[in-house]
Amino acid sequence: MKLIWFGALLLLLLQLLFSKAASEFNIETLPGYSGTLPVKLETGYIDVGETEEVQLFYYFIESESNPKTDPILLWLTGGPGCSALSGLFYEIGPLAFDVADFDGSLPSIHQNPYSWTKVANIIFIDWPVGTGFSYANTSKGYSSSDTKSAKDNYTFLRKWLSNHPVFMKNRLYVAGDSYGGKLVPMVALEILKGNEAGFHPRIFLQGYIIGNGVTDPNIDYNERIPYAHRMALIPDEYFESAKISCDGKYYNPDPKNLQCLYALRPIQESIKNVNGGHILEPKCKIIAPKPDELGWDQTLVEDDSIDHLFLPSKIDGLWCRPQTYATSYIWANDPIVQEALHIKKGTITDWTRCNHSLSYEHNIESVVQYHKILSKKGYEALVYSGDHDMGVPYMGTLKWIRGLNLTIDDEWRPWNVNGQVAGYTRKYKKNDFYLTFVTVKGAGHTAPEYNPEQCLAMLDRWLSLYPL
Amino acid sequence: MKLIWFGALLLLLLQLLFSKAASEFNIETLPGYSGTLPVKLETGYIDVGETEEVQLFYYFIESESNPKTDPILLWLTGGPGCSALSGLFYEIGPLAFDVADFDGSLPSIHQNPYSWTKVANIIFIDWPVGTGFSYANTSKGYSSSDTKSAKDNYTFLRKWLSNHPVFMKNRLYVAGDSYGGKLVPMVALEILKGNEAGFHPRIFLQGYIIGNGVTDPNIDYNERIPYAHRMALIPDEYFESAKISCDGKYYNPDPKNLQCLYALRPIQESIKNVNGGHILEPKCKIIAPKPDELGWDQTLVEDDSIDHLFLPSKIDGLWCRPQTYATSYIWANDPIVQEALHIKKGTITDWTRCNHSLSYEHNIESVVQYHKILSKKGYEALVYSGDHDMGVPYMGTLKWIRGLNLTIDDEWRPWNVNGQVAGYTRKYKKNDFYLTFVTVKGAGHTAPEYNPEQCLAMLDRWLSLYPL
Repeated sequence: MKLIWFGALLLLLLQLLFSKAASEFNIETLPGYSGTLPVKLETGYIDVGETEEVQLFYYFIESESNPKTDPILLWLTGGPGCSALSGLFYEIGPLAFDVADFDGSLPSIHQNPYSWTKVANIIFIDWPVGTGFSYANTSKGYSSSDTKSAKDNYTFLRKWLSNHPVFMKNRLYVAGDSYGGKLVPMVALEILKGNEAGFHPRIFLQGYIIGNGVTDPNIDYNERIPYAHRMALIPDEYFESAKISCDGKYYNPDPKNLQCLYALRPIQESIKNVNGGHILEPKCKIIAPKPDELGWDQTLVEDDSIDHLFLPSKIDGLWCRPQTYATSYIWANDPIVQEALHIKKGTITDWTRCNHSLSYEHNIESVVQYHKILSKKGYEALVYSGDHDMGVPYMGTLKWIRGLNLTIDDEWRPWNVNGQVAGYTRKYKKNDFYLTFVTVKGAGHTAPEYNPEQCLAMLDRWLSLYPL
Repeated sequence: MKLIWFGALLLLLLQLLFSKAASEFNIETLPGYSGTLPVKLETGYIDVGETEEVQLFYYFIESESNPKTDPILLWLTGGPGCSALSGLFYEIGPLAFDVADFDGSLPSIHQNPYSWTKVANIIFIDWPVGTGFSYANTSKGYSSSDTKSAKDNYTFLRKWLSNHPVFMKNRLYVAGDSYGGKLVPMVALEILKGNEAGFHPRIFLQGYIIGNGVTDPNIDYNERIPYAHRMALIPDEYFESAKISCDGKYYNPDPKNLQCLYALRPIQESIKNVNGGHILEPKCKIIAPKPDELGWDQTLVEDDSIDHLFLPSKIDGLWCRPQTYATSYIWANDPIVQEALHIKKGTITDWTRCNHSLSYEHNIESVVQYHKILSKKGYEALVYSGDHDMGVPYMGTLKWIRGLNLTIDDEWRPWNVNGQVAGYTRKYKKNDFYLTFVTVKGAGHTAPEYNPEQCLAMLDRWLSLYPL
């Protein structure tokens, strides 16, 4: 009897070891990067969902400073459906594609000197299921929603920390931008509730970070028109007329209010060809239009296509940012790359940077309520806005922050990098809850992609509790 | 007796010939440009003033298309005191310094593919006396003012046309930017009055062109704060507070209104380190501060110094535009260059790009009245604004245009270059007077310096009477 018990235990142990060994890989080299990687990169899968039918893929990169004591960021790229790889390679990770020399073959990779891994450990997660390299074992498993994603991401985090006991005591921040802004407070609340319920491991949630985050479309997207007015894209007259006719409701206006629809028409005509992600950058016209090209849709759509791999240079005036994303398609779809990343064979047929055909229910319209609940607890929140983003304009962000009824702790003032004004900041508080609002002057929707040096300085100071 | 008469006549003729020969030079080569100049350049002096004590220096460049039929622009660079050379080499002329390879020695010159001389003949004038290479024969001659400058520039133009009968029938536009915006309508009115008085030669004034022009400081400079508010540099709260306390009067506020001064303080703190000429470009901090550094002064001050000839590159983040102006100091102060330009020896000891120590009386505060008078005549006016300029913001320009009580002839809409939104335009009219307002999206104070391709397209279409 004892022997049988012992044998069963041994089997279980082996299974656990095997399973652990099978889902976590230390990556020392990657196609496109010459030599050993300059950072400690781990990739892997963690199964979540009721019957563990969902396999969430992640990239974990250790801090380049003091991984044992530096905080952990759980980074949630937006979309929903935009891959973790996009956040890693184009925004805040230590590796970046050499876009300038890209010729359609496997792109080279260089180091990003302004990686957020300079000061933090970062878990980049392919969420929700169907995004990047994350997949489900069942067809039903591909269905997701805001609430399910929040739970899945929380489960993911608990399992990941259980597998990495050495990081269990690190301060943790939930972070993300664009649509990630909706999930960040939701995941934070899951952690809070889990901690309060005594779930293990206890997660040392310190706060959260949101960049140009979607919070409430009725606020965020509604501010696109006041923003366009401010930024000289529409004249006072158009704006005043719409303000009166639409009673300030420009997003999803009453279809019976013809006067409002009429007032919105010249506004839409004025801004429809402007790049919403950065009003001063070129808009890619050669990309196949999406049904929601006008930008009045529920989510922020990114121009995305693999059809044109020719990258005009910035100098000849035809350059546009989304074309630089072509590098990711070539790289991530290369079988050698997938092998190096330890992608399970047969799980992904066609990797896309942003998957726009997810089965995803946007079942939480506004997360203002989540912020309200969190603001009653002692957390640090960093909420930043690239101020040239029309998709989720800074004005909407300031509006929902105002709705939290916080007290101003430190008034609006410029913050500097290299002796230059990098943007503006204002700090709010409510008991032990602190929210730092930051604009990144001249940056677009994904601020660190546009102003990397400034954004790393912002993060570094904020994580160190320095005034910005 | 006949012989004496004949002798006297011959002498006069010789004097005239000599004087003409001495004041007009065709320049075929220039130090820094390899080979023969790609355009027809003439330099020279024209004497103006009551006793002809003022020698106004000019550069005339023929149109690269059809000089005989293309219009003439009389280009008035701003300041007052900024040289014609600055407008020519950094804004709209066919020659530009090779800033990237500048090492402190004589800069190389290359061609500007977006020169306005592609479609127009341009006279670049060093106005007022004391600017660039213009000088006076007497110490008293160096005194000038808005009204005197307008008269001098008109006299200059009449004399120049008299010396160039081949151009006498060309359509003519008075044009300029920044402080030139004040002189443009004043010179236009001088021409109008001169024509009405039957002065010769009759000048074929077709209209005028103004870029980010100073029109009325109480409008233009007053709008800097509403503009800063719109562009995310100051928050709603600061702006609302100032609006109420200062009753909308932010420029030259009542010194007894302490509440207003108090409300303006955090606003000034917020924007004082922002580059007023383009709110997203770096501000040169290493340049010696001027008394009016805050930008609340009467004129738009440009950072200008020859102290630092080291030009950091755009890539290392330390680049700033005013440092590129160092090339002009080295070039224009070189004796070989001055000889090539036929500068009279001993007239200029130290050429400066912008002379800030002119004896100049700003005796016309607002030129709105001049625009009103001109708007009753049949002219074409092009009024453009780089929309990222805080010095003379587009909002102020729209405000004084509104004051002209024109009718909207063509509503606000985007205009495109290379399939991209280059800015917005709206056309006004009053009888036979047409005013086209244009924003240049993303451009700073001297718009063609920032967005050259767009600005040439704008000029070309407008001169050809095409819709923008």
